[in-house]
Amino acid sequence: MKISSSGLLSADGAPLPAILEFPDSVLRGIGQVMLQNNSWTGLLFLIGIFCNSTLFGLGALAGAAVSTATAMVLGADRSRVRAGMFGFNGALVAIALLYFLEPDALTWTCVVFASLCSSIVMAAMLRLLQFWQIPVLTAPFVLTSMCFFLAIARFGRLHSTHLLPTAGLPASATVEGIVTASTVAQGLFNGIAQVCFQGSVVTGILFALGLLVSSRRACAAALLGSLTGLVVAWGMGAAEPAIRAGAFGFNSVLTAIALWSVFLRPGAHSLAYGAVATIATAVAFAAISAALEPLGIPALTLPFVLVVWVFVLAAAHFPRVRAAVIQPGA
Amino acid sequence: MKISSSGLLSADGAPLPAILEFPDSVLRGIGQVMLQNNSWTGLLFLIGIFCNSTLFGLGALAGAAVSTATAMVLGADRSRVRAGMFGFNGALVAIALLYFLEPDALTWTCVVFASLCSSIVMAAMLRLLQFWQIPVLTAPFVLTSMCFFLAIARFGRLHSTHLLPTAGLPASATVEGIVTASTVAQGLFNGIAQVCFQGSVVTGILFALGLLVSSRRACAAALLGSLTGLVVAWGMGAAEPAIRAGAFGFNSVLTAIALWSVFLRPGAHSLAYGAVATIATAVAFAAISAALEPLGIPALTLPFVLVVWVFVLAAAHFPRVRAAVIQPGA
Amino acid sequence: MKISSSGLLSADGAPLPAILEFPDSVLRGIGQVMLQNNSWTGLLFLIGIFCNSTLFGLGALAGAAVSTATAMVLGADRSRVRAGMFGFNGALVAIALLYFLEPDALTWTCVVFASLCSSIVMAAMLRLLQFWQIPVLTAPFVLTSMCFFLAIARFGRLHSTHLLPTAGLPASATVEGIVTASTVAQGLFNGIAQVCFQGSVVTGILFALGLLVSSRRACAAALLGSLTGLVVAWGMGAAEPAIRAGAFGFNSVLTAIALWSVFLRPGAHSLAYGAVATIATAVAFAAISAALEPLGIPALTLPFVLVVWVFVLAAAHFPRVRAAVIQPGA
Repeated sequence: MKISSSGLLSADGAPLPAILEFPDSVLRGIGQVMLQNNSWTGLLFLIGIFCNSTLFGLGALAGAAVSTATAMVLGADRSRVRAGMFGFNGALVAIALLYFLEPDALTWTCVVFASLCSSIVMAAMLRLLQFWQIPVLTAPFVLTSMCFFLAIARFGRLHSTHLLPTAGLPASATVEGIVTASTVAQGLFNGIAQVCFQGSVVTGILFALGLLVSSRRACAAALLGSLTGLVVAWGMGAAEPAIRAGAFGFNSVLTAIALWSVFLRPGAHSLAYGAVATIATAVAFAAISAALEPLGIPALTLPFVLVVWVFVLAAAHFPRVRAAVIQPGA
Repeated sequence: MKISSSGLLSADGAPLPAILEFPDSVLRGIGQVMLQNNSWTGLLFLIGIFCNSTLFGLGALAGAAVSTATAMVLGADRSRVRAGMFGFNGALVAIALLYFLEPDALTWTCVVFASLCSSIVMAAMLRLLQFWQIPVLTAPFVLTSMCFFLAIARFGRLHSTHLLPTAGLPASATVEGIVTASTVAQGLFNGIAQVCFQGSVVTGILFALGLLVSSRRACAAALLGSLTGLVVAWGMGAAEPAIRAGAFGFNSVLTAIALWSVFLRPGAHSLAYGAVATIATAVAFAAISAALEPLGIPALTLPFVLVVWVFVLAAAHFPRVRAAVIQPGA
Repeated sequence: MKISSSGLLSADGAPLPAILEFPDSVLRGIGQVMLQNNSWTGLLFLIGIFCNSTLFGLGALAGAAVSTATAMVLGADRSRVRAGMFGFNGALVAIALLYFLEPDALTWTCVVFASLCSSIVMAAMLRLLQFWQIPVLTAPFVLTSMCFFLAIARFGRLHSTHLLPTAGLPASATVEGIVTASTVAQGLFNGIAQVCFQGSVVTGILFALGLLVSSRRACAAALLGSLTGLVVAWGMGAAEPAIRAGAFGFNSVLTAIALWSVFLRPGAHSLAYGAVATIATAVAFAAISAALEPLGIPALTLPFVLVVWVFVLAAAHFPRVRAAVIQPGA
């Protein structure tokens, strides 16, 4: 991810007063949820979340702040902290825990503890993946959140909301409902909003605007990614309500941003390669959400993480799509 | 895997006319299913598959061709492509999808897409494993195929055949049926044929002949590996129909070929070490197929992949079995 | 782990008669179960196990002996063998198999085979993890044991005891029973004894003494780790019988020993960092044991292994907790 980028609180290039550095890092962390090191983008994402729910907005802010502060206390590399690299997983962990667990005092304690842990998992994965120069992406969020959802089965004081999938054995799907123009229109923007577990078209539009102020290319990739996920799911016979809710879109949105606007050399080969990855992400979402069905936990953004790792790793052997310099970090 | 080896379409050493290079690579890819870089072997394997089923024969050919072509289009290393390294996973993915999914138009689309993806996963794993110099083996086939089998639970237009295991919770097995001489005779050759999901003694014999033209050692290893898997399963009380069908043999066949004829220093220690691995593969097959029972997907060749990775990695610490030069690639 | 340390059979520094080297290595292997390269510690652990059960005591001895001998036959590095690095996983595998499988002739055959395999898995993981300089810990024990527990579902002659969890789908827990002073007192020492699957306060006290003769710091860490795991489980609403049995303690015991006495730079930051890890281990135990519920297998020490890997990997990015020299090996 780009370390130097425009920010809300500073003109580019000008040094920022010390007191504003922390809030700027936190907002960049929220922007990094969709791979944008830009505090304006982070602010728009945050407004988009608050539009849908004050609870999730506060959660995102708290999660990004705790995880960023944890990295600073432990002496992590300053440029990474400033780029928001230790904030996005914390923000996502906090939203996910508040979405899937009853927001009582114990859950808020878990939110703080899990956000703190997400920065430790981030550092662990930076180290783990450094030999391959592939990005960590949202893997720390996925691992940390899943841990708490699974723990519900052992801890009687952790209370899930009705939103976690019921544990069951996977069975063959049948085609449910009919996809209409309204399914497509809502699914398109819900797919973008679902990156932060927000089922709201308004939030999706604000997220798209947030991307636009950072990168036109990223914004176009997100829209096209959401549409691709939706169309693949439709063609394969996924359930209409899931398509409308954006369930098959949000992982493809992230893959599209990552491969079409960040990690590959621009060009025709990369466009096709990224399209394969975006389609594969929709299939991987179906597969991973089914594989997790016996555990009763959601796939979160694991399909995005795994597919992007595969396609970025593979690019090392494919000169026609390989970026000249692979960006480390993120 | 050996890069320079004998070929169907060329005298060794003589350059091959450009037009014959692609079919030669594809046939080598089919030979690499059992680690043989030899287009005669690939041809015999293909004949063996066609003897059992035209559908699977066409699938193997299409899968190997699509995955080989994908690697060429993306600019992969030419010597790897020529050695069939980008063909064997595609061939296996195609056979597995046509075996476990109804062979309709959507499944054929998936066969093409999955074969294409298998070459990307192959490149990703070549990169992932390069630090340890261990072979990729059939991991891309396993990962790609499992993805489609799991996706059946979300995609209503993907139809499984009755051959996928039913999702269930693992329960203690009891001894079923009595192993006779005919169980052993059929299980021995079915075990070799099942490497390509063919339950046919004739196919197994043709596969053994295919190995023989490439390497007497590999052929002997395959027969002994199949027998070992069968005997372990019998002794531990596995069900007779599964033993007869070669279910406990095909992973041991591959482990035996890999450890007795490719990846270890020849000698008494390596014979014993390979025997431990071949026995361990039969136990690992039982474990992994039970572990996948809640998902309703088959173990495929995952036990072989994991056991060979362990034994080749470990050889780095055991000078008495370590090959002088570990062969990269495959 | 420390390679040079005090031993039962030799004054420090004096060379040991060749005939005593093997038993000394085996006892060190038993001591390494809790990361102590000290044959007196190993002897006390062994006495602790025999106090609870002759069967498990014989198993621990046999497992450590077979796995140590396997490494010697294959020519593994002598200093690692002498430090007990190839013994602790074998000892644990043997105890676990005798605990969860009926101790008949086939199970004893499996004990020998699995202990042998545990040394091969150990070598594989030494190689796998060498690039990150993180310790293998008890991962070979976990992987090897789980393989045999899962295989029960395919092999009719493997008989489980009633101690393996029943395969089921995870469901939300409710608070069961009331935690009293006796729960805490028993849970504290059972948590230490459960590192070797011994539910016995006497064994727990002997294990604590074993740690004391090797390192006061390790002994204090073990007690505090067990208490932390217990308190977290209590606060989160875990079932009282499980808390009393030490189920939420033994992984935290190991994490506490590893992070507070072996792998981090001593200091205030490391105390806090280790505390986070010890709490996280209790949550990870809940999560992993729930995740394995559909398979009907126990979590063993997998939570400890994964959490310590994460925290040691992450320390590379956190100078305030990073050890000056990361100890390779173990």
